[in-house]
Amino acid sequence: MRNYLVEFIGTFFLVLVIGLTSINPGTGVIAPLAIGAVLMVMIYAGGHLSGAHYNPAVTIAAWIRGKCPSKDVLPYIASQVLAGIIAATIVTFLKQPTSVSEASLATFPALVTEFLFTFALVYVVLNTTTSKQTEGNSYYGLAIGFTIMVGAFAGGPISGGVYNPAVAVGISTMGLSAWNNLWIYLLGTIAGGSTGALVYKVVNQDE
Amino acid sequence: MRNYLVEFIGTFFLVLVIGLTSINPGTGVIAPLAIGAVLMVMIYAGGHLSGAHYNPAVTIAAWIRGKCPSKDVLPYIASQVLAGIIAATIVTFLKQPTSVSEASLATFPALVTEFLFTFALVYVVLNTTTSKQTEGNSYYGLAIGFTIMVGAFAGGPISGGVYNPAVAVGISTMGLSAWNNLWIYLLGTIAGGSTGALVYKVVNQDE
Amino acid sequence: MRNYLVEFIGTFFLVLVIGLTSINPGTGVIAPLAIGAVLMVMIYAGGHLSGAHYNPAVTIAAWIRGKCPSKDVLPYIASQVLAGIIAATIVTFLKQPTSVSEASLATFPALVTEFLFTFALVYVVLNTTTSKQTEGNSYYGLAIGFTIMVGAFAGGPISGGVYNPAVAVGISTMGLSAWNNLWIYLLGTIAGGSTGALVYKVVNQDE
Amino acid sequence: MRNYLVEFIGTFFLVLVIGLTSINPGTGVIAPLAIGAVLMVMIYAGGHLSGAHYNPAVTIAAWIRGKCPSKDVLPYIASQVLAGIIAATIVTFLKQPTSVSEASLATFPALVTEFLFTFALVYVVLNTTTSKQTEGNSYYGLAIGFTIMVGAFAGGPISGGVYNPAVAVGISTMGLSAWNNLWIYLLGTIAGGSTGALVYKVVNQDE
Repeated sequence: MRNYLVEFIGTFFLVLVIGLTSINPGTGVIAPLAIGAVLMVMIYAGGHLSGAHYNPAVTIAAWIRGKCPSKDVLPYIASQVLAGIIAATIVTFLKQPTSVSEASLATFPALVTEFLFTFALVYVVLNTTTSKQTEGNSYYGLAIGFTIMVGAFAGGPISGGVYNPAVAVGISTMGLSAWNNLWIYLLGTIAGGSTGALVYKVVNQDE
Repeated sequence: MRNYLVEFIGTFFLVLVIGLTSINPGTGVIAPLAIGAVLMVMIYAGGHLSGAHYNPAVTIAAWIRGKCPSKDVLPYIASQVLAGIIAATIVTFLKQPTSVSEASLATFPALVTEFLFTFALVYVVLNTTTSKQTEGNSYYGLAIGFTIMVGAFAGGPISGGVYNPAVAVGISTMGLSAWNNLWIYLLGTIAGGSTGALVYKVVNQDE
Repeated sequence: MRNYLVEFIGTFFLVLVIGLTSINPGTGVIAPLAIGAVLMVMIYAGGHLSGAHYNPAVTIAAWIRGKCPSKDVLPYIASQVLAGIIAATIVTFLKQPTSVSEASLATFPALVTEFLFTFALVYVVLNTTTSKQTEGNSYYGLAIGFTIMVGAFAGGPISGGVYNPAVAVGISTMGLSAWNNLWIYLLGTIAGGSTGALVYKVVNQDE
Repeated sequence: MRNYLVEFIGTFFLVLVIGLTSINPGTGVIAPLAIGAVLMVMIYAGGHLSGAHYNPAVTIAAWIRGKCPSKDVLPYIASQVLAGIIAATIVTFLKQPTSVSEASLATFPALVTEFLFTFALVYVVLNTTTSKQTEGNSYYGLAIGFTIMVGAFAGGPISGGVYNPAVAVGISTMGLSAWNNLWIYLLGTIAGGSTGALVYKVVNQDE
């Protein structure tokens, strides 16, 4: 139960900050920087407890990697998605959303973008948190958080820069993304994350 | 006495930078980035001396957590509040404040925002600085400082993004916030911080 | 083979992010911050595997330093350049480039700028990753990534801020730079990087 | 000799980046971020060699602290000032300065600002690099570099945000500051830095 609460808290603040900084945003720097930073701080806060996935694509990748017990996969994902929905509800209370971007995604570029940066995310997560050679490092949260910041800057204008199924549910709930885009996020992130886990295993065979 | 001086210095520079970057500000990125960074550097400078609270809500949370002796609670808070007042006075000498935001807070959203991000702050502080499993890490200042940066970006437009009773007193002294908002900051931050300390204890029961 | 794949992945994401953030950019902060950050995260992800050069000038410098076997030099460079070309191709699919800066470089200032910041890059890389006295540190990725961010901010308006032959090939492929500028980047970066390696050896003689 | 070269390189790049980002600047975020970052990376690159002062006020403070031999003080300062002048000369070659801010400083606020943030700089430097309790940490460069970033954001509009006599000489050489402001920078930084060293000794008496 402890771990599910930690996953809930981390994903809650991730989606909360996404909502609060993406609705009526300031300059284009603010949302990616804030989102990358909140992921970083929640990873540093919860990494030693639950592993700090905060993302179903990461949970699936960690399971492929052999670092997440099968019995935890569904409860982790449930905690993350629930956190995304509740955070989205609080966001809409705190700040009224003004636009729904229903028509803005070009399907194939969005799919490729979600695939590529979720791949990068999982590749960074597994190398910095599950490799023997990087054990005890102090940079894993910085690396993972800033991967999402990079993805938001680089891929945001193409796909929305989601890279996380729980975030996809959250931004759909709060009206920042149309529900009929959800399959793009689910397919792109789970395929990208799973590929990232396989490539991790290829390049770390000697462990 | 040593610790009270360290708390004074850290809180002084925190409130000084808040004042200097929030009065006649540049782009919306500058103040949150500078404020998060000054908290980070003062935590790295003073953490090994006083614990680097610089925030009455953190001192109370550390006391609930059992990491701040009862006899230190009031002197720590006094040093922090005094530093806030003196920094505010110097700010008004260095740079003339131009506006008072007396009417801008919606009470309930502001309370919720102050509660949530002070909760996050304390949750990050206690997990990165008082948990056995994260001992000796080099990231605690980065994590804590950037939590405040995130809170300033995400919650700033709603509550002012204070998350610290000493800062609340400081910005009231320098005319950036109306004194009749003070209770919102005191209630929100102390409730949020105390809840953060309790949740920390729940998720770290096995220590 | 493992190392070549890691070099490919890292350079691929570096050039991908350069392309995606430099074509129709937002504020001037975004591209340098995103580029520095993606280099940082890919170094943290791949440093323990391939050494995380992602840059022919760094590979040559590491070889001068005695930390890259001669047999790896050409395959590393080939992986990096190939990654640059493929990333550029994907960028032009995801986002249509709008301008070619064929006439904008003043040759000598551009050469000096590429020389200076590639020197700085190699000096930082070798000191933070190959010196006995800094072994086991957690900051090498931060230091190297942010060197490139600094170079992009400071030298970008003069030379384009490339500092990497594989990036030079990538941005030429995607039409962000004219092919007849390529020699400036090759000469400036290889001369700067090699000088950086020699200066490293001078100041670390006692190792 | 080795150390003087390292001090030269670090200060050279600091002043180079200050010049390049402060002449015809972009948004107000760029110069402070780039300047803080270049100081950070040069500290991580040279800290284990020369101590990475890059600043006469820090050299004097380190000497007061007992961490810089008396015979090194003048050569260190000479290397730093020489680096500032040469960097300034290269800046004026690479990018033509457009304005001299001769009339813009209010003397007393500028003095106070230079005093306060040089105090903070030295306080952070000594606590993160010379205290037994923080030995072996990976954050010292981040903490010191970001102190300067904070000082540039918060104090830049008041004093120019110099906090370093070698930088003061450099920006005077390149025409970004009037020579008759130089005494403000020398007095403010040396007084602030020396006070920082004394306060360090007070709060670390038990070492």
